[in-house]
Amino acid sequence: MRFDEPLMLCSGASIAGYELVYETYGTLNAERSNAVLVCHALNAGHHVAGIYADDPGNLGWWDNMVGPGKPVDTDRFFVIGVNNLGSCFGSTGPMSPDPATGKPYGPDFPVVTVEDWVHAQARLADALGIERLAAVMGGSLGGMQALAWSCLYPQRVAHCAAVATAPKLSAQNIAFNEVARRAIITDPDFHGGRFYEHGVVPVRGLQVARMIGHITYLSDDVMGEKFGRALRRHVSDAALPGGYRFTFDVEFEIESYLRYQGEKFSSYFDANTYLLITRALDYYDPALAHDGDLARALAPALADFLVVSFTTDWRFAPERSREIVEALLANGRRVTYAEVDAPHGHDAFLLDDAQYMAVMRSWFERVDARVRAGAPAGHAQEAR
Amino acid sequence: MRFDEPLMLCSGASIAGYELVYETYGTLNAERSNAVLVCHALNAGHHVAGIYADDPGNLGWWDNMVGPGKPVDTDRFFVIGVNNLGSCFGSTGPMSPDPATGKPYGPDFPVVTVEDWVHAQARLADALGIERLAAVMGGSLGGMQALAWSCLYPQRVAHCAAVATAPKLSAQNIAFNEVARRAIITDPDFHGGRFYEHGVVPVRGLQVARMIGHITYLSDDVMGEKFGRALRRHVSDAALPGGYRFTFDVEFEIESYLRYQGEKFSSYFDANTYLLITRALDYYDPALAHDGDLARALAPALADFLVVSFTTDWRFAPERSREIVEALLANGRRVTYAEVDAPHGHDAFLLDDAQYMAVMRSWFERVDARVRAGAPAGHAQEAR
Repeated sequence: MRFDEPLMLCSGASIAGYELVYETYGTLNAERSNAVLVCHALNAGHHVAGIYADDPGNLGWWDNMVGPGKPVDTDRFFVIGVNNLGSCFGSTGPMSPDPATGKPYGPDFPVVTVEDWVHAQARLADALGIERLAAVMGGSLGGMQALAWSCLYPQRVAHCAAVATAPKLSAQNIAFNEVARRAIITDPDFHGGRFYEHGVVPVRGLQVARMIGHITYLSDDVMGEKFGRALRRHVSDAALPGGYRFTFDVEFEIESYLRYQGEKFSSYFDANTYLLITRALDYYDPALAHDGDLARALAPALADFLVVSFTTDWRFAPERSREIVEALLANGRRVTYAEVDAPHGHDAFLLDDAQYMAVMRSWFERVDARVRAGAPAGHAQEAR
Repeated sequence: MRFDEPLMLCSGASIAGYELVYETYGTLNAERSNAVLVCHALNAGHHVAGIYADDPGNLGWWDNMVGPGKPVDTDRFFVIGVNNLGSCFGSTGPMSPDPATGKPYGPDFPVVTVEDWVHAQARLADALGIERLAAVMGGSLGGMQALAWSCLYPQRVAHCAAVATAPKLSAQNIAFNEVARRAIITDPDFHGGRFYEHGVVPVRGLQVARMIGHITYLSDDVMGEKFGRALRRHVSDAALPGGYRFTFDVEFEIESYLRYQGEKFSSYFDANTYLLITRALDYYDPALAHDGDLARALAPALADFLVVSFTTDWRFAPERSREIVEALLANGRRVTYAEVDAPHGHDAFLLDDAQYMAVMRSWFERVDARVRAGAPAGHAQEAR
């Protein structure tokens, strides 16, 4: 979808015109009241569910959640996946040509925020003729967008599902982002963000950034269970004490896993996008303009909420979700909160967990029932 | 101290001859029974306490613990600080000339283990005429050396203080080490470890490595209290929303802190040493040769133990110390265990905390009393 009207950004900059790539699943009903918008996190985009006929290996990133008969049932809902502004999966971003120069934006692509993304997504909803969304949903950074939607467009969001998210990053969260950014920015192949013109990619920086990320996505426990201190087979075959090889190469399975993840990521993810997305994470802090009072920040929201956290998620711990729940309750909002006992850390929001899936399914069944009853609203509808 | 006899290493390699830099504090008594060996962790060395007349700003790394009237009272004890083999603070290491080539060892310096360090330290004790140490002590990686001493030289260790340590690294611990190593190794200025010959230093890699380290040294809470989401003054002066500047430069205080720590570290720490020391951490696992049975691994130890952990230390959490305590108790060893409620994370072992210092002082008073009674031993002495 092409948008020619400039978009004013939080930073004061604006973007002249832009494209958003999106995918839809299911059928928009006649009342246009069954649309569910899925917001993505760092390493994802519009391709939420299913496969392409010509690329059957490329499964949508939330395919276990969205599809026919799945918790977000595309036999009932019209689901929209949209790639955010500044991303590298098709929407306008740092790799796109800057109309001012004809060359890729690179570091000149403006810094965007969660709120900017939401405004851009709202225009997409406009263009699709959807005045009111049955639900906005997202995990992690996607959950922040869902929260922002509920505050910026309260009349347009009937239900809001914020999964494994936080009302703002902690100092430790920002610290991890900063280390990842430094790894990228100090890679000589980054060239101040103009690496496209040099025909190179800062793969070393991207690899280190992704390795750091992966450590924070998994719980200490699941990392222990999955990898522990196991050595790679060819290593433990050696006759040296402990099976060690006494090198700095890959010896432990966990090293192999991280290096593989880093290499895979660096082969497709744009370094400038990494910077932009982590900065959007850093900046999101709706309470900032309200003297740190989250309840006041969320006061405009009218949606019915679902908040989900995972016990072993130390990146966005359950305590962070509870802050959101308490702020919503302080405003008299209706909130379903599930703290899922799952071992997988932050990654859990992408994985199959019976309890988690049951919570999502049951909550979306209620959303569907309201849509069918012609009352797809939360508080706003009732207040009429 | 120069050692000309080759030292066989765990890896099967050997080091021809080497020097260990050490410092001593206090006076060795006539019975040579009041010696306390301090083992250092990653970023430290022999300079444990005090200052040098010509460098008054260079305070020893554990000066709050060791000195006249301090918990490890140098009016009573003869304290030895020794820089480990492979380090970069004076003992033979990667920056030293390889006798085979006359050029710095660089990547040819052999991979050393905690046990190798202990054997090298034992030779130093021999050379100082100390048959039996009143105590061996250390924090973090230093605690691993203290544990290894108690098992490798049970008759030579009367007391053993292992602070903020673990019986082995977890997969997550190894993961953080691996990311730090990758940042260094993939820095083009690393030159496969031969950067000395190129007149450069892999500062970018060292900076990122140190930044990662610092995140794991501090608790999430103390980082929140110390830095939170505060913006640097010149930043928050800006009139943009939230005080943000919409850049990837330092905006948050936590970014400034990490960058400063990284830059400082890269100005004095050797990259090859970083690899060696983190690998020694990875490899330490005394239970490995005993089917994972830590009690069997620690069975040779005869010392009286002090084990200390800190509630907010998520790098080496209290659970890890409790594993040590339980294994020692299973062997009928005498153990004092203190779980100190301190907010500072892993860093707490280097900081002043009243409860922590009181525990250390009281335990070392008992060590001193035994030294004075001519019975500076734990179990071994009693078993005679």
